[in-house]
Amino acid sequence: MKLVVTQENLSRALSTVSRIASSRGSLPILSNVLLKTTKNQLTVAATNLDIAITETIGAKIEQKGAITVPARLMQDFIGSLPSGNLELEVADNKLSLRMDRFDSTINGMSPEDFPVMPTIDGGSVIKLSSKEIKTTLQQVLFTASTDDARPVLTGVYIHGDKNNMYIAATDSYRLGEKSLNKSSDSMSLLVPANSLQELLRALNDDSQDVVVTYDEQQARFSVDGVEIVTRLVDGKYPDYKKLIPSKFETTATLKRKSLNEITKVSSLFAREAAGSITLSIDEQKNEVSIRSIASQVGENTAVAEAETTGSATITMNSRYILDALNAFDGEKIMLNINGKLDPCVLTDPADSSYLHVIMPVKS
Amino acid sequence: MKLVVTQENLSRALSTVSRIASSRGSLPILSNVLLKTTKNQLTVAATNLDIAITETIGAKIEQKGAITVPARLMQDFIGSLPSGNLELEVADNKLSLRMDRFDSTINGMSPEDFPVMPTIDGGSVIKLSSKEIKTTLQQVLFTASTDDARPVLTGVYIHGDKNNMYIAATDSYRLGEKSLNKSSDSMSLLVPANSLQELLRALNDDSQDVVVTYDEQQARFSVDGVEIVTRLVDGKYPDYKKLIPSKFETTATLKRKSLNEITKVSSLFAREAAGSITLSIDEQKNEVSIRSIASQVGENTAVAEAETTGSATITMNSRYILDALNAFDGEKIMLNINGKLDPCVLTDPADSSYLHVIMPVKS
Repeated sequence: MKLVVTQENLSRALSTVSRIASSRGSLPILSNVLLKTTKNQLTVAATNLDIAITETIGAKIEQKGAITVPARLMQDFIGSLPSGNLELEVADNKLSLRMDRFDSTINGMSPEDFPVMPTIDGGSVIKLSSKEIKTTLQQVLFTASTDDARPVLTGVYIHGDKNNMYIAATDSYRLGEKSLNKSSDSMSLLVPANSLQELLRALNDDSQDVVVTYDEQQARFSVDGVEIVTRLVDGKYPDYKKLIPSKFETTATLKRKSLNEITKVSSLFAREAAGSITLSIDEQKNEVSIRSIASQVGENTAVAEAETTGSATITMNSRYILDALNAFDGEKIMLNINGKLDPCVLTDPADSSYLHVIMPVKS
Repeated sequence: MKLVVTQENLSRALSTVSRIASSRGSLPILSNVLLKTTKNQLTVAATNLDIAITETIGAKIEQKGAITVPARLMQDFIGSLPSGNLELEVADNKLSLRMDRFDSTINGMSPEDFPVMPTIDGGSVIKLSSKEIKTTLQQVLFTASTDDARPVLTGVYIHGDKNNMYIAATDSYRLGEKSLNKSSDSMSLLVPANSLQELLRALNDDSQDVVVTYDEQQARFSVDGVEIVTRLVDGKYPDYKKLIPSKFETTATLKRKSLNEITKVSSLFAREAAGSITLSIDEQKNEVSIRSIASQVGENTAVAEAETTGSATITMNSRYILDALNAFDGEKIMLNINGKLDPCVLTDPADSSYLHVIMPVKS
């Protein structure tokens, strides 16, 4: 292998793929990245056997070939170099890197030992706007579970009907659901949240459309020369839609910033109570108030003006409220409540495409 | 106690003093801050018995008094409030805080149990420019030792002669020394680096002069309503000046950015060798080169153009070089070397007020 690439391109590709190259696994070669020539391009790849990520960049190939080298060293090294043309050459499983003023050799391993990258033959294809999918992932990924005890909840559920595509995730304490205006009748995919996290990292503000190809076992996300192939999560996703109330007895609409402020202040007094705060909507006073009591340190009541219908009190984890508010970007937020044991639904009164559900703490 | 202060002032004062209020100590009250009225002002204070910091802010005092409250909760809480006027009132060792929309009570402890803040009666006084002392602290603090095994090296040594004041710190592997154009003939102070770190945090770009008052045991730094009183370090500081060569056989002057770049890249190959890299000055080629070898992962040579006198090779810790380069702000840096077992001295060819010494690694 002998080729020339720019430091900028190689550095970007390494940072796209390297995060999943793990040094903790049982197979040492999984902590390496694969560099492989393909026509006039260089493919940079890494895998943890569940996910495989490749990025293909332009290169001037003088001699084709392949090698694997330690991902972390390679990424740190290329990232520290100045911009400019970089010459790569492989001999005896050693990678020589040369550019003006720098001359390095990195010991590699044979590309033959690198796991074969999974492929999808056939499968269904759908295109999604990068901008839309980026916002969506920021709104739903954090609500997926990180606990492997219930694997289905570590997935993000993408499904649809004639009119909409729904992208939802829940850890059973809270749920985020985005609906996109896109017919996707037969779709039902359960994608590991981890894999979508990698997709999110690969998306830029000026990315092209994301092409999703999927079959029963796998999905591939392609955008801007990056390909992420992931296994799908096995199992049946809970029918979460029936858990979301459609009518509410009590609602309050207030500035998102105000709710954030009073929740944040109250959370400081909720440390003893694992973050639990008590939120009240008062129709008489037209206000939302949050009360938290820490017997050791003190107590706090914070109030915000709101437009209200009905009165109610509910106990929730303050961290979940703060996380949820962060997933919206509108000026106002609407709280929708029934009883104090029923889920609280947060919506943006100006945009119904995203809803966020928080289960109350039983108090 | 009953008074009104602005959230901005109280929040700033809490953030100035709170860091030294420790929750790990044996005395629970040391994790509290003291709030105490003085005429038309509120004094906010904390101490760890080695250092005491107070900041005095304007307040509308309605009833004088004092209380101590948990530092961390108080700082987080006041910092989370919106700006505006804040009403504080004490009853039964509870502090009530009220402002528009917020109503809180924080449980405190009696101010009587708070340690008496140390004072200095008499003592010598010297004034220093805030801007100058800020730069100086950024250049020398990181070279002080953090190892209590040799307490004198955890101090910063401030001493002088008829023409200059010298501020120096060393951990025995490297040394930073700043000289200020200020007569300070009889001065000889060994101030804990930790205390000066707090002074550095208190300095802003528009701070007034720092007034230093000191006697045999203590020093007080006063600036902008903040007072830091610290015990001095006991013991005799090593006569470091005689360890700094005044003549050099080999020198190289190069761009600081270039040396930073080649050191950084080389350090990636020096992880196995605890950061050791080998730096060579080559008079023939007019260059500085750094070579690092990691038998496991590979090797690297990086070169930078330089104006040179003489040739030499020396092995040093790459982290120390990077730290040192960060303490300069000139465009160029000068490396001054004698033998490979002698200290390497870094200077700015355009500004002789700061010098940095790195001891070589014996290789």
